[in-house]
Amino acid sequence: MQGPKAYIEQNKDRFLNELMDLLKIPSISADSAFSHDVLHMAETVESALKEAGCTQTEICETEGYPIVYGERTIDPSLPTVLVYGHYDVQPPDPLNLWTSPPFEPVIKKTPLHPGGAIYARGACDDKGQMYMHVKALEYMVKNNKLPCNVKFMIEGEEEVGSNSLVTFVKEHKEKLANDIILISDTGMIARDVPSITTGLRGLSYVEVEVTGPNRDLHSGLYGGAVANPINILAKMIASLHDGNNRITIPGFYDKVQELSKEEREAMAKAPFDLKAYQDEIGIESVYGEKGYTTNERNSVRPTLDVNGIWGGYTGEGAKTVIPSKAHAKISMRLVPHQDWHEITELFSSHFRSIAPKGVTVKVTPHHGGQGYVTPIDFAGYKAAEKAYEKTFGKIPIPQRSGGSIPIVALFEQELKSKTILMGFGLDSDAIHSPNEHFGVENYLKGIETIPYFYQYFTEMSK
Amino acid sequence: MQGPKAYIEQNKDRFLNELMDLLKIPSISADSAFSHDVLHMAETVESALKEAGCTQTEICETEGYPIVYGERTIDPSLPTVLVYGHYDVQPPDPLNLWTSPPFEPVIKKTPLHPGGAIYARGACDDKGQMYMHVKALEYMVKNNKLPCNVKFMIEGEEEVGSNSLVTFVKEHKEKLANDIILISDTGMIARDVPSITTGLRGLSYVEVEVTGPNRDLHSGLYGGAVANPINILAKMIASLHDGNNRITIPGFYDKVQELSKEEREAMAKAPFDLKAYQDEIGIESVYGEKGYTTNERNSVRPTLDVNGIWGGYTGEGAKTVIPSKAHAKISMRLVPHQDWHEITELFSSHFRSIAPKGVTVKVTPHHGGQGYVTPIDFAGYKAAEKAYEKTFGKIPIPQRSGGSIPIVALFEQELKSKTILMGFGLDSDAIHSPNEHFGVENYLKGIETIPYFYQYFTEMSK
Repeated sequence: MQGPKAYIEQNKDRFLNELMDLLKIPSISADSAFSHDVLHMAETVESALKEAGCTQTEICETEGYPIVYGERTIDPSLPTVLVYGHYDVQPPDPLNLWTSPPFEPVIKKTPLHPGGAIYARGACDDKGQMYMHVKALEYMVKNNKLPCNVKFMIEGEEEVGSNSLVTFVKEHKEKLANDIILISDTGMIARDVPSITTGLRGLSYVEVEVTGPNRDLHSGLYGGAVANPINILAKMIASLHDGNNRITIPGFYDKVQELSKEEREAMAKAPFDLKAYQDEIGIESVYGEKGYTTNERNSVRPTLDVNGIWGGYTGEGAKTVIPSKAHAKISMRLVPHQDWHEITELFSSHFRSIAPKGVTVKVTPHHGGQGYVTPIDFAGYKAAEKAYEKTFGKIPIPQRSGGSIPIVALFEQELKSKTILMGFGLDSDAIHSPNEHFGVENYLKGIETIPYFYQYFTEMSK
Repeated sequence: MQGPKAYIEQNKDRFLNELMDLLKIPSISADSAFSHDVLHMAETVESALKEAGCTQTEICETEGYPIVYGERTIDPSLPTVLVYGHYDVQPPDPLNLWTSPPFEPVIKKTPLHPGGAIYARGACDDKGQMYMHVKALEYMVKNNKLPCNVKFMIEGEEEVGSNSLVTFVKEHKEKLANDIILISDTGMIARDVPSITTGLRGLSYVEVEVTGPNRDLHSGLYGGAVANPINILAKMIASLHDGNNRITIPGFYDKVQELSKEEREAMAKAPFDLKAYQDEIGIESVYGEKGYTTNERNSVRPTLDVNGIWGGYTGEGAKTVIPSKAHAKISMRLVPHQDWHEITELFSSHFRSIAPKGVTVKVTPHHGGQGYVTPIDFAGYKAAEKAYEKTFGKIPIPQRSGGSIPIVALFEQELKSKTILMGFGLDSDAIHSPNEHFGVENYLKGIETIPYFYQYFTEMSK
């Protein structure tokens, strides 16, 4: 019997090539033009689960994209681990900023990834991290090291709000029954600084439309006399933050859980180099809510960001027009205990209320999810901590992430089980950006660490 | 010998068909993809001038699109009319709002145009109005009614700033020598209310770019800690107007010529129905600078309008991204005696100065031009007034327009001659908008009125 390290060494090239093949499929859930690829991706994931050792697999149809289910039950009296991941990816644009095509994966060496990193949309978020679990299962099954039961639930709508998953989870509580949920869709502090994400932000994503005149107007003939939807939209967006960069929506902060002095001190201890942070993304200065540090701003404080804006003439050259409409996509990151339905409602009514006469405003809620905080004093967390210690030789640091995995809160509510967020990506992996990548070492380290989690969790659950 | 009315009646169909053919050429100067069509349009205009009776024509090459020149000199001792117009058109987008394809002209009846209107990009601005002069020349030549000399200067870059024309005019003062300049690129108050435009606004058109991080960022991992270029751009744009909708750029109003009490009273007398104005463009309320009427706001007051804005994810669905860049196209309409070079400089330095730390700002001046006011007490205006009275049975109302024809000020400066703006379009003709059109009656009325201007101007110049 060999340990995971040796098995990974022997199969390294195959593990990489299999992931590269998955990354060639443009499974962009946000753009219906790619629906065929998203469906093809689902089938590919199902066969991967079969080959890895799932004795039961299924492509579960939903109103949206299907959920791929896999299971291997060795003894009902043993604990069950439920692995969640997603096979859909973010749109790759702006395409011109990619140094290699987003769906033609290549391995390149970088200062942060001397062992090389796989460049492709979805390399880290989440195909690479999801596939670590598939390969970890393969190792455990092939070597008789699977100590408990395992279930997989891999969805195809995470990047667009997981709408179908919500229904699926509510309707299949029996099928999904488990003792712990394992997700790798977050990051770690640094290649040699393992960490476990203990908190996630919630999300409310809306689209707004400001309509002025019933048609585009000549800015010379009408300029100055008619409300220009773009100027108005800019005014309305600007008014959503005050001089201290606090969000001005009435009631927005009412339920925000403020950190204790101790918690803030603990956070301040996490290794963080502001200069390096600024240099890595090429900014001269950070920017945010007065009275909070950068690490607090991007993890335990709520935000409001415009993710996209468009209106009027955006082509080459000049057009002197007052457009009929202007649009923006706006997302708010929420913290415990803000409720995303409530925040979406607060935003909508406030945004409508600040529209001046002369324009009409439409707010379309897109999707959202609740934030989440994991305890660090139960078997699931302890097992993960020990697994990292085994493979990294260091105790992982618990950290709050600014990202959102909306369904984590749903899992706890519907399935009554906790989630462990074992992330192996780095902030610098450029997920959601051009040139997304995932370190080869991180990928293999994940495959190596996961089986130990199964082992320790089963032992600790006895 | 017959008058213009009868000649037009006999040739009506041909006059319409010839214009329709010109409208089929997509001569969009702002988009280099159409450069071939713009050049083809220039050749078409030259042959039209030849056929109409110009004894000398020429396609004058420039650094940009060529200027079509035509001339018919009958006696150097007689006055010379210089006709200016442009053969380029605005981009037609948004295409989906056109009820018929922009470059497939069709005639449709409308409440305001019971005699039918030609629907096509450029129908009114400026192919239709420019071609009225060509057909008026044809009438005068064919019927020995040309009382003076005539020159045509038809350019192809009016919609993108007339850059080449500026050089051309400065270098060909002799060739372009004239006693009066005639332009039909403006509108009249209503189908049965003729008016002559006595004032134009100047223009300064700039493009701005706000850059934050060196790549698009995940709004969860970085949101709240990094300046979002879209939010910042919105804030900067919003700050360009104060609570009274006055422009906040320091020095912007310093040289604005305020109207006298008498001038404002005269303007207030022009027929104007606010309800009809609002209904026609589908707004519940007008919007603009405090203390001024709608007619003042859109003609004698300067403005600042965003003509286009874009940044981040604007596709289908949702993408949680903090973009690296956000852009806007901004134009300012200027009034006498604001200098567009100075205003462009004031804007640029102010806009750069209000950028917060964490972003960099680039301002690219696009083009511009000075405003203009025509006197109403000289032969040119009197002749135009009499010509309208002859064909409409009413004395035309002098009115200031909010639009800009930057080169008018240039003509006066370089060629030392005044310009008469004989416009036959209506504000409702949707120039620069989807479904631009030009009334058949307006078109024919223009062809009928122009020859009388030549006759009266020649008489009054004796």
